[in-house]
Amino acid sequence: MSQLSAFEYIRRGQLPFFRLATAEPDETCDAVIVGVPWDQSVTYRSGARFAPWELRRASALIQTHHPVHRLDVFERLRAVDGGNIAIPPFDARAARSVIQTEATRVLESGAALFAVGGDHSISLPLLRAVREVHGPIAVVHVDAHFDTSSGELWGEDFHHGTPFRHALLEGLIAQDGLHQIGIRATWGSADEASFAADRGSRIYPMSRIDDGGIAQIACEIRESLGNAPFYLSFDIDAVDPAFAPGTTIPVAGGLTSRDAIRLMRGLAGANLVGMDLVEVCPSLDHADITLHLGAQLLYEGLALLALAKRQS
Amino acid sequence: MSQLSAFEYIRRGQLPFFRLATAEPDETCDAVIVGVPWDQSVTYRSGARFAPWELRRASALIQTHHPVHRLDVFERLRAVDGGNIAIPPFDARAARSVIQTEATRVLESGAALFAVGGDHSISLPLLRAVREVHGPIAVVHVDAHFDTSSGELWGEDFHHGTPFRHALLEGLIAQDGLHQIGIRATWGSADEASFAADRGSRIYPMSRIDDGGIAQIACEIRESLGNAPFYLSFDIDAVDPAFAPGTTIPVAGGLTSRDAIRLMRGLAGANLVGMDLVEVCPSLDHADITLHLGAQLLYEGLALLALAKRQS
Amino acid sequence: MSQLSAFEYIRRGQLPFFRLATAEPDETCDAVIVGVPWDQSVTYRSGARFAPWELRRASALIQTHHPVHRLDVFERLRAVDGGNIAIPPFDARAARSVIQTEATRVLESGAALFAVGGDHSISLPLLRAVREVHGPIAVVHVDAHFDTSSGELWGEDFHHGTPFRHALLEGLIAQDGLHQIGIRATWGSADEASFAADRGSRIYPMSRIDDGGIAQIACEIRESLGNAPFYLSFDIDAVDPAFAPGTTIPVAGGLTSRDAIRLMRGLAGANLVGMDLVEVCPSLDHADITLHLGAQLLYEGLALLALAKRQS
Amino acid sequence: MSQLSAFEYIRRGQLPFFRLATAEPDETCDAVIVGVPWDQSVTYRSGARFAPWELRRASALIQTHHPVHRLDVFERLRAVDGGNIAIPPFDARAARSVIQTEATRVLESGAALFAVGGDHSISLPLLRAVREVHGPIAVVHVDAHFDTSSGELWGEDFHHGTPFRHALLEGLIAQDGLHQIGIRATWGSADEASFAADRGSRIYPMSRIDDGGIAQIACEIRESLGNAPFYLSFDIDAVDPAFAPGTTIPVAGGLTSRDAIRLMRGLAGANLVGMDLVEVCPSLDHADITLHLGAQLLYEGLALLALAKRQS
Amino acid sequence: MSQLSAFEYIRRGQLPFFRLATAEPDETCDAVIVGVPWDQSVTYRSGARFAPWELRRASALIQTHHPVHRLDVFERLRAVDGGNIAIPPFDARAARSVIQTEATRVLESGAALFAVGGDHSISLPLLRAVREVHGPIAVVHVDAHFDTSSGELWGEDFHHGTPFRHALLEGLIAQDGLHQIGIRATWGSADEASFAADRGSRIYPMSRIDDGGIAQIACEIRESLGNAPFYLSFDIDAVDPAFAPGTTIPVAGGLTSRDAIRLMRGLAGANLVGMDLVEVCPSLDHADITLHLGAQLLYEGLALLALAKRQS
Amino acid sequence: MSQLSAFEYIRRGQLPFFRLATAEPDETCDAVIVGVPWDQSVTYRSGARFAPWELRRASALIQTHHPVHRLDVFERLRAVDGGNIAIPPFDARAARSVIQTEATRVLESGAALFAVGGDHSISLPLLRAVREVHGPIAVVHVDAHFDTSSGELWGEDFHHGTPFRHALLEGLIAQDGLHQIGIRATWGSADEASFAADRGSRIYPMSRIDDGGIAQIACEIRESLGNAPFYLSFDIDAVDPAFAPGTTIPVAGGLTSRDAIRLMRGLAGANLVGMDLVEVCPSLDHADITLHLGAQLLYEGLALLALAKRQS
Repeated sequence: MSQLSAFEYIRRGQLPFFRLATAEPDETCDAVIVGVPWDQSVTYRSGARFAPWELRRASALIQTHHPVHRLDVFERLRAVDGGNIAIPPFDARAARSVIQTEATRVLESGAALFAVGGDHSISLPLLRAVREVHGPIAVVHVDAHFDTSSGELWGEDFHHGTPFRHALLEGLIAQDGLHQIGIRATWGSADEASFAADRGSRIYPMSRIDDGGIAQIACEIRESLGNAPFYLSFDIDAVDPAFAPGTTIPVAGGLTSRDAIRLMRGLAGANLVGMDLVEVCPSLDHADITLHLGAQLLYEGLALLALAKRQS
Repeated sequence: MSQLSAFEYIRRGQLPFFRLATAEPDETCDAVIVGVPWDQSVTYRSGARFAPWELRRASALIQTHHPVHRLDVFERLRAVDGGNIAIPPFDARAARSVIQTEATRVLESGAALFAVGGDHSISLPLLRAVREVHGPIAVVHVDAHFDTSSGELWGEDFHHGTPFRHALLEGLIAQDGLHQIGIRATWGSADEASFAADRGSRIYPMSRIDDGGIAQIACEIRESLGNAPFYLSFDIDAVDPAFAPGTTIPVAGGLTSRDAIRLMRGLAGANLVGMDLVEVCPSLDHADITLHLGAQLLYEGLALLALAKRQS
Repeated sequence: MSQLSAFEYIRRGQLPFFRLATAEPDETCDAVIVGVPWDQSVTYRSGARFAPWELRRASALIQTHHPVHRLDVFERLRAVDGGNIAIPPFDARAARSVIQTEATRVLESGAALFAVGGDHSISLPLLRAVREVHGPIAVVHVDAHFDTSSGELWGEDFHHGTPFRHALLEGLIAQDGLHQIGIRATWGSADEASFAADRGSRIYPMSRIDDGGIAQIACEIRESLGNAPFYLSFDIDAVDPAFAPGTTIPVAGGLTSRDAIRLMRGLAGANLVGMDLVEVCPSLDHADITLHLGAQLLYEGLALLALAKRQS
Repeated sequence: MSQLSAFEYIRRGQLPFFRLATAEPDETCDAVIVGVPWDQSVTYRSGARFAPWELRRASALIQTHHPVHRLDVFERLRAVDGGNIAIPPFDARAARSVIQTEATRVLESGAALFAVGGDHSISLPLLRAVREVHGPIAVVHVDAHFDTSSGELWGEDFHHGTPFRHALLEGLIAQDGLHQIGIRATWGSADEASFAADRGSRIYPMSRIDDGGIAQIACEIRESLGNAPFYLSFDIDAVDPAFAPGTTIPVAGGLTSRDAIRLMRGLAGANLVGMDLVEVCPSLDHADITLHLGAQLLYEGLALLALAKRQS
Repeated sequence: MSQLSAFEYIRRGQLPFFRLATAEPDETCDAVIVGVPWDQSVTYRSGARFAPWELRRASALIQTHHPVHRLDVFERLRAVDGGNIAIPPFDARAARSVIQTEATRVLESGAALFAVGGDHSISLPLLRAVREVHGPIAVVHVDAHFDTSSGELWGEDFHHGTPFRHALLEGLIAQDGLHQIGIRATWGSADEASFAADRGSRIYPMSRIDDGGIAQIACEIRESLGNAPFYLSFDIDAVDPAFAPGTTIPVAGGLTSRDAIRLMRGLAGANLVGMDLVEVCPSLDHADITLHLGAQLLYEGLALLALAKRQS
Repeated sequence: MSQLSAFEYIRRGQLPFFRLATAEPDETCDAVIVGVPWDQSVTYRSGARFAPWELRRASALIQTHHPVHRLDVFERLRAVDGGNIAIPPFDARAARSVIQTEATRVLESGAALFAVGGDHSISLPLLRAVREVHGPIAVVHVDAHFDTSSGELWGEDFHHGTPFRHALLEGLIAQDGLHQIGIRATWGSADEASFAADRGSRIYPMSRIDDGGIAQIACEIRESLGNAPFYLSFDIDAVDPAFAPGTTIPVAGGLTSRDAIRLMRGLAGANLVGMDLVEVCPSLDHADITLHLGAQLLYEGLALLALAKRQS
């Protein structure tokens, strides 16, 4: 289940993630990558519905050997492209339901799930599926925003600014298990910042990263995770718009691409069971720089899994 | 209620449509231009939610004197920018309801309504409002598509490909009063093309325009309209993507900008009571060419009203 | 072998041309569409190597029913996406050889070949394959350039400005069977224009189209083709840069998109056995307008085949 | 061996127009092409200062043989690139003076002048130079605007909307010698349209071109010009924004690229002594389509000169 | 005087800075934000005239609560959008005069002035106004360039490369009160670098920031400022082009967005009386990243004011 | 006075680098900058053929005084623009031969060579020329990739991923003289990473730069170089795509622009005899940010030469 060769890739004319095989997930898979083309829950610019398509293309430039962990990721892992989840395009409630069902199916097969959004509202059904299969586990949430809005402002309680409010309220996350990294956006209601803090979220705002560096923070989080399973939700807007212009709500002053990659690498040895990459908006990208970073981050997630597998 | 001077426009730093005053519509108005920033009902790329904002900017380049009708449009008309309709962003049904209510309010004041979308799904509540105030009237529908899909394909009966199916089924349009100009897209189900034809729509596909020219067709339609009130729904994708790249679903082989303008001018003397301009997607535009054409078409609509007022 | 439904298309996450099945060509196929990602023979800007990939994406918007011929193209035809030809990327001679071999294989299976370039140099091996299977046949060549350069200027006799010189010299085209439409570029050597004319090419420069209209010319060509098999080579730069900016060497003053489509439709009833679409350069396109036109032209070619099949 | 001074750098202008030699104009030249990088007199977006530079680049794709007039333009003509006029960048009055001086110098050498702007305000000093050397002569003015504003609006009488008001008032143009083609923009003051008409301008608005076609109009103008010397001022915004998006003030509904080229070709045999091409704004262009059209139009002007030389 | 709610913002269809009220400045205001759309004094690319318009749009994404200072900025401050200064577009001297007059009017009302350019030449009249009202005070000048050119090169002494030469010569700045941060551009005349240094400017070139970090430098400057009033002039080109591509004269190797924000935050407690943000050129931006950074920097300036007000 | 031939046009290259004189290199020159417009050896996107042209344009913004080394670079050095090397566009073997010959000619004149690519395959003939004149010397290679692929994958042993494999195998580099900085890309075959390491390359991957900082690494390399002549090969993809989007194969997580500049400056005093800058792809750039960085890096190379000359 390694990557296609370059010639085979040219032969196909179409592309699965990382030039892997496209297949229905089954019990032989270590990792299943699925697209989740839903972006109807954004409050500003949409376009993330096309990210799965474009990230497949960009991921074709990623080779198998990891330059730091020094392992052959796709030789170690049986990873497949599970296609896109077929989401009803106009019904948010039904969309959440389908996403949860499909995610549960993958996780129940024993594979780790890599979900490529889509906007951040998809993390709620994904976390529900994770809880269903693994129980409440720790979550590493990389983002410029808390995503704990109350939703009142927009007349709808389930949009891309609210998933972690619901996740906390529904008990989807282990006690004191939420880590929020990269937070920096201004907020509109006093409640937004205190909500997560009051519920035990460990918050690593940009100002802490400015002062202490990302490596130290990755180390802290790694220690906190121990060997328990955890989930990683990566909102690309955690990264500075210079490195990731292709996103819905850019916020100046974020992670560099090196910060983002080091954070992922700093979690080596931890037990990843699922990951999402959200809010990549290809039409706002330039020269595919957001896409190449996004593909690299997915690859870093797969490398974490490969590392864990080597250890076990 | 004429345009701001250039200096006043610079002074403001913000812009109403055509540099007009921003005001609540009242009985003194001849025309009210409102933005309808809804684009959640598209089946491919979204972005039309920002069109009212960007069209205000582009419309600032339009001056008051019409080069062909030879009249001072904004001296003749009391036209105002009525702001945007405040639409709940995640609830299509509620959105349709608000749009209908606001449109009805404007039309009941006696003014003509110019609605700037937004995707084409907004035409359904607009036509419902028109029927409420004026009864079923003739409709000139300029588009690359019939917009009479059944909606089955997408699991939702009210999206931007279905408004004219509903309008016909709900009896919003006068008997034999639908004129569809510019139709050329391929279709997926046999029913799509026959639905309108079977209900008396007068269809002017691009092949007829290729053969006979737009002037002749405008003339035919003008005659058919007589002095009765009519509504005009202009989907910018009727125009060829070379002239209007900034749209959701481009279809090669459309109207030129001159065709579009001539069509509007050819209706001189007819009795316009409302108009929408939809599917303008600014993020896909280049050098504002779609926006400048869109602003011109709105201006041509206002000029039709000014002409009618001069006659009366 | 009809198109995927919209949901299946979303499900896949990847796309064949026109949402058709991807398959090895066999004797049951009427039409095989293949990508030919070669652009190393250009004299100015490259990028056409990515056109097969991007045209697959754009072609997903084309539905099956033809608005003028009134037939269900993909129900009538058994058409498949044959993938891309696997071309050695740095060896032009080997590339031509592989292209010819693969094209011959498709044509020998009895299917019509639709080759999506790539630069115009690919037409030479394609025409060699056509001659191999069908003998020398008539060729409709739509282009801004004669493509009969001698190649001296660039120290290489086989580049994207020379295919029709070689095709004429090698006897690949039937006597008086070359029709060149849209020619308008300035030329650098006196020989370039006379070469084709001296060998019986029927030349329809833009000035003739300005004077007589494309419909009349299509009619003339249709008559000349009769029922004999013919090949169509469409260089997108025949179309004006306003309608097709995404091309290597744009030349002002070309066909409109409507001209291009009418030309194709005007050949209804003729016996198409192969077609190429070349010089589409996606990185220079804007808002996919060149891609949508290109996909439409391919569809028009398929529709010609479907029409011919209905007649037989 | 230090760097050029800023002025010398501006002076050079570089990659010569049409790959011609760069040379000081002398009495052996038939045509001198100069850049006029001034755009400080625009009322909306600037950027035309870079047009001479970018048009040199685009003009490198134009070869010497004319596809319709059938002559070898650069063999027939002794044409040189005279570099850019070194304009003081912040002083409009001084700029006008330098432009006039340099233009006069070229014209006095006996060569025809091809001036590549820059914004339309440069036509005033150019016309003053023409009058100085040739007396008041006929002028063919291709534009979307009359360019006869009074200037009051902007507190300055000499900007890119006023050159033809001044030219008429200063008697720079022969009696009844002004031909204005392509006019279509709305105007803000009643006087703007009547000013030129009242002074004998022959106005060919877009509506006349819609009705009668450009070929007929070119014929009329050609006849009116006779054998007397004339000047041609081509504002690229005469062309529709689809064909020429790279311009300062786009106006929907203009000439096609084929109209523009046909107009130029329709003047074959007339006695061109100077031409300017203005308002090309490269930063707003896409895929160089405006630049390639602009280069073609300059080439058509040079071809007119070559034709006239052949006749004499 | 807090921000509009999201719904009210949608309702309006037009936008003041930060969704504040648009109002004439009076004595109740703490802060007045004005646009200064002047860019006629640039030596390379223009376009900053549109920055006030576009920054208003981008600033709508900024909420009121500050993530580090932990205060509700717009609840603390009475801030209004004062509109744009109405500048005569073709007369640099008159423009400077109007800018000074308007700025003085705001400052005399007791409010702090936030001026959104425009090119850097506007800082001269702004500093003149500041001196008029507050006397010569300290100035924090963030820039890639010294902006102390002599002007000889361009034949004009007042352009966007000279404002700080004039400010120093005219005594607008307190003794040893000029702090220049981010300086890194090459220079053409030996005098340029020594001019400011010889007059007591404290220069923090990029090489010092590379070595010591921005936090330390902010600290030094903060200490030097004490409680005396100071002015802040932020040229966006101080920031690296990766973070701020939308500028006139980009210079590689600048501040990161985090450096820029930390610098601003490091001045907490100092007594800001005015600020300008200049050289933002929206047409060169990508995905609004420069605009979002610019809006953030303005917000940081407002937050400084809010902090100072809390203290007092 | 006809047009330049295509070869002569390519030869000229135009607007000289850094506004220097264009001249044939002779023994009076300290530095010769040449363009090497070859990009036919890339494995993904091409376009670097236009980099010499566009970098000349961007380099015009660089002035002569260095802000850190504090010297007048172009007064110190006799530097000229040697034009572009006239490369046969379709023959890679002949291209390598011409590049080697021309590079040898410059180096033999005693000047340092600054070669502006083009893709990285040009470094092989350049290094061959360097060895011919200077013998095997140390090489500083800045890149995201090892560029030591075996070439098997693509059926061709000489492409832009292989130059350093050949250079090592051919003995072009001094024993233990290869320094590779910035390496971070994933690789496809286990051999790729070990090949250089096994042959004594000193590898500074991004992870070392993350940990120790670029200044320390520059210091180490400087020490290792001593006074012996060395060559510098700078692949712009060493820099993060945020700072250098205009490149063929972007890899997330690279050098910042400040890292790149500091690295160059850290080599002050070392004995540079040649430098190349490769893989700049202007069509993928945004707002010229890659170009301005590239021009700065070339200038830093020239400054190293000027420093060395001052010392000697």
